[in-house]
Amino acid sequence: MTTTSDPIQGSRTWIEEVRWNADGLVPAIAQDATTLHVLTLAWMNREALERSASTRLAHYWSRSRARLWQKGERSGHVQRIREIRLDCDNDAILLVVEQEGGIACHTGRERCFFQRLDDARWVGVEPVLKDPDQIYG
Amino acid sequence: MTTTSDPIQGSRTWIEEVRWNADGLVPAIAQDATTLHVLTLAWMNREALERSASTRLAHYWSRSRARLWQKGERSGHVQRIREIRLDCDNDAILLVVEQEGGIACHTGRERCFFQRLDDARWVGVEPVLKDPDQIYG
Repeated sequence: MTTTSDPIQGSRTWIEEVRWNADGLVPAIAQDATTLHVLTLAWMNREALERSASTRLAHYWSRSRARLWQKGERSGHVQRIREIRLDCDNDAILLVVEQEGGIACHTGRERCFFQRLDDARWVGVEPVLKDPDQIYG
Repeated sequence: MTTTSDPIQGSRTWIEEVRWNADGLVPAIAQDATTLHVLTLAWMNREALERSASTRLAHYWSRSRARLWQKGERSGHVQRIREIRLDCDNDAILLVVEQEGGIACHTGRERCFFQRLDDARWVGVEPVLKDPDQIYG
């Protein structure tokens, strides 16, 4: 009987309890701590989650650019983390955050979920709070 | 010059505007319309989203069971949809729902995100509202 290759539940670190997908990622929802609005859905690899936990600033993995990034590194719209939560299947993360500037979306809106399905079409229902050219210019 | 194979933006239906991943899925967040708590993160294929929109009851694609399911089909804890939203990248869905029974998680808790990172360990911080044996028995 060999047990050396079996992880012992009690000895696993919190990061090892996360069930990463085949690409080593998990989806991470960010929710505003004040308004409770759902701001963004992004992706984390192990390093992004470790840095988020250690710095209390949201870090994600960009799948399109294939690199780690800190939310707000260019825009200044950082997300200060109040809570990190994990779901029942250990494969999705929820961050409860204070959203700097009140703008989470690169389009200059409060949140990325600004398109609502109305009469079989997607309608933008959130105002642009700041011109993206001003945010990233 | 051929244009017949290019989709014309204006002629695409709302469901075709969603950017499905390589497996034909998108992540779908469910948020309680009353408490604004984030309840679940599940996955949708095209049929799940179409049925969700037409019935106003949340339908998802189970990756583990490889089948379409209606949330609450066994437990009775259906999610009645108030809003369907799409994010800025067209690759994540947010449902704002009325959660029947006030229980979204199969563990009998209000929500799946019941584990909170405290001092480098995941701690359950939401009460079990109903014994799962009673829900599914």
